Amino acid sequence: MPPFPKTIAIVGSGALGSYYGAKLARQGADVRFLMRADLEAVREAGLRVREGGAEWVLQPAQAFASTAEMGPVDLVLIGLKTTANAELERLIPPLLHEKTMLLTLQNGLGNEEFLAERWGAERVLGGLCFVCLNRVAPGVIEHYGHGTLSLGEFQRAPMERTQAIGGMFSSAGVETHVVENLVTERWRKLVWNIPFNGLSIATGRTCDILLEDQGLQAQVRGLMEETIAAAGALGHPIPASFIDFQIERTFPMGPYKPSSMIDWQAGRAVEVESIWGEPWRQGRATGVKLPRLEMLYHILRQVTIA
Amino acid sequence: MPPFPKTIAIVGSGALGSYYGAKLARQGADVRFLMRADLEAVREAGLRVREGGAEWVLQPAQAFASTAEMGPVDLVLIGLKTTANAELERLIPPLLHEKTMLLTLQNGLGNEEFLAERWGAERVLGGLCFVCLNRVAPGVIEHYGHGTLSLGEFQRAPMERTQAIGGMFSSAGVETHVVENLVTERWRKLVWNIPFNGLSIATGRTCDILLEDQGLQAQVRGLMEETIAAAGALGHPIPASFIDFQIERTFPMGPYKPSSMIDWQAGRAVEVESIWGEPWRQGRATGVKLPRLEMLYHILRQVTIA
Repeated sequence: MPPFPKTIAIVGSGALGSYYGAKLARQGADVRFLMRADLEAVREAGLRVREGGAEWVLQPAQAFASTAEMGPVDLVLIGLKTTANAELERLIPPLLHEKTMLLTLQNGLGNEEFLAERWGAERVLGGLCFVCLNRVAPGVIEHYGHGTLSLGEFQRAPMERTQAIGGMFSSAGVETHVVENLVTERWRKLVWNIPFNGLSIATGRTCDILLEDQGLQAQVRGLMEETIAAAGALGHPIPASFIDFQIERTFPMGPYKPSSMIDWQAGRAVEVESIWGEPWRQGRATGVKLPRLEMLYHILRQVTIA
Repeated sequence: MPPFPKTIAIVGSGALGSYYGAKLARQGADVRFLMRADLEAVREAGLRVREGGAEWVLQPAQAFASTAEMGPVDLVLIGLKTTANAELERLIPPLLHEKTMLLTLQNGLGNEEFLAERWGAERVLGGLCFVCLNRVAPGVIEHYGHGTLSLGEFQRAPMERTQAIGGMFSSAGVETHVVENLVTERWRKLVWNIPFNGLSIATGRTCDILLEDQGLQAQVRGLMEETIAAAGALGHPIPASFIDFQIERTFPMGPYKPSSMIDWQAGRAVEVESIWGEPWRQGRATGVKLPRLEMLYHILRQVTIA
C-alpha cells in the first residue's frame, strides 16, 4: 500500500471540510485549510471540535486566505458547495503537483466529472459523507452524530491509493468504506435526497410531515421509484426494497430538516443542479420517464433563485 | 321560453357575485345580496361598479346579513369560494321554494355535485365566468375586461329554463353562451387553471416566467397533457391542439397573476380541492397516469395550509 498523503489541502472549510481536516491533522498530517470568514478566528484560536460530549482543539491550525499561499499538496479535499464549483477553476491550479489527488466530498452528481474534465480523470476520487455537523461559531464545529465516509475512484475500481486514503481516514477516527462503484453509491444517496430535500423545500415541511401526509408520502415513493429507474438504466441497479428501507429509516428522524431545506431557509444557495438537475439530465438521456423529478427540478430552480 | 327568474339571491357577494348581481338588478330583477364585510357600506352607499371608464351605482342595493331575512327566491347565484362550501349547508335552505334553481359560478369540479346531493340534481345549473374583476373598496367593484359567462345544466343538455337564464344575463349586458356539456367546459378551463394557477403558487412566479423558463413551460404542457388525458377518459374529448392555443393566448398576458396566486399571496384560502384535488381523483379513477398533477396537488395542499 502506498503511504498516506503527507500534505492535504482543504478547499471549502465549512463544517465538513473543517471537521475532516481537523481529524486528519490531529493524526499528524500536514493539513492546510483555505478559510474565508473564519480565517482570523482560526489563526488566533485554532479549530475547535465538539463531539461525544467533549471538546478538542487543533492549534495551531494552518489557515490560509488563498490557495497560492498553500502551495502544491498530495491530496485536495473539496468540501465546497457545488453551487460554487466555478470558483474551483482558480482555486485548484496552485495546489497541483504531478500526482496531486482531488477528492470531492460534494453532494450529488457531476462533481467528479467537473474535476476530471479540467485536471485529468486519473487525479479524481469521490466520497459520500454520512455525518451530522454544524459550524456553531467561527472556527467551532459541532459533531452531532454519524460520520461514515464512503470512498471510491472516479470511473474505476478501488486501487492501492484508494485503500491508503481510506486507511488514513480510518486511523483518524473516521469510519471509512472503500466502495467498488462510487456512482452507484451516489445514486443510492440520491434515492433519499431527491424526494426529501426537494419536497421539504417545495412544501416547506419537515420529513415527519412528508411521511404523515399519505399523499405526499406517495410522492416521496414515486420520486424514489423514478430515481431507481434512472439509476438502473444507467447501470446502477438498486432493488425496489430499498424504498421501504429508506422510508422506514426516516420515520425515527422526526421533524428533521434536510440539508437543502436548511440552506434554503438560511438564504444560502441550494445545490439544485447536482441533486436534481444532473440526475434528471442523465436519467432522461436513457429514455426513462421521470415526470415527478422533472417537475420538481424545474420548480426548485425557480424557487431557489436568489 | 319560461319567464326570467323574478327573485334572485346572491350567495357569496365577492367581486363576482356583486358584479353579476348588480348587472341583473339594474335590468329590473329583484336581487338580494348576502353580505358580510361590506354590508353596512352597501346599505349606505349602494353597490358601485366601475367599467369601461365610467362608474354606475346600484342604489338602493338589497343587502342582507342572513339568508333567512332574504327568504325563498327563484334563482340562487353562488359565488362563494369553494373552500367555504360547507357554509352552504346552512345558507341555502332558507332560500328554497319548490322550484328554486341553484346556479354555481364557482371554480373547478365538484360544486354542482355538492349542490345536487343536498338539494336535488334538478335544481342545479353551473356557469363558468371569464371575467376580470376586483373589489377595490367596500361595495366598489372594478371590471377590467372580458365578461363572458358559459352556462349549462348539471348532467343534462340545456333546457328552456337554461335559455331563459342565459337570456336574462344577455339582456343585462353579460355575454352568455349556453353550453351543451357543462363538465366539458369545466375541463377545458382546467387545462389552463391546473398548470398556471398551480405552478404560480409552487414557484412564486407569474405567467410570463412560467412560459419563458423552457423547463417550466414543459411542465405547463405536461400538466395540460395530463388534464386532457383525464378529461378524455371521462368522456370529455379535448384536442391536443388546445395546448398550443392556450400557451399562445397566455404570452400576451405578460406578468399575469392567476387568481389562486392572488388568493395565496393575500393569505386567503386557495381552492385546492376543486381545481386540483377533484380533477386528480376523477382522472385517477379512470386509470390514467397523472404523476405531475398528483405531485402538484399534494404540494399545494401542504403549501396552502394556513
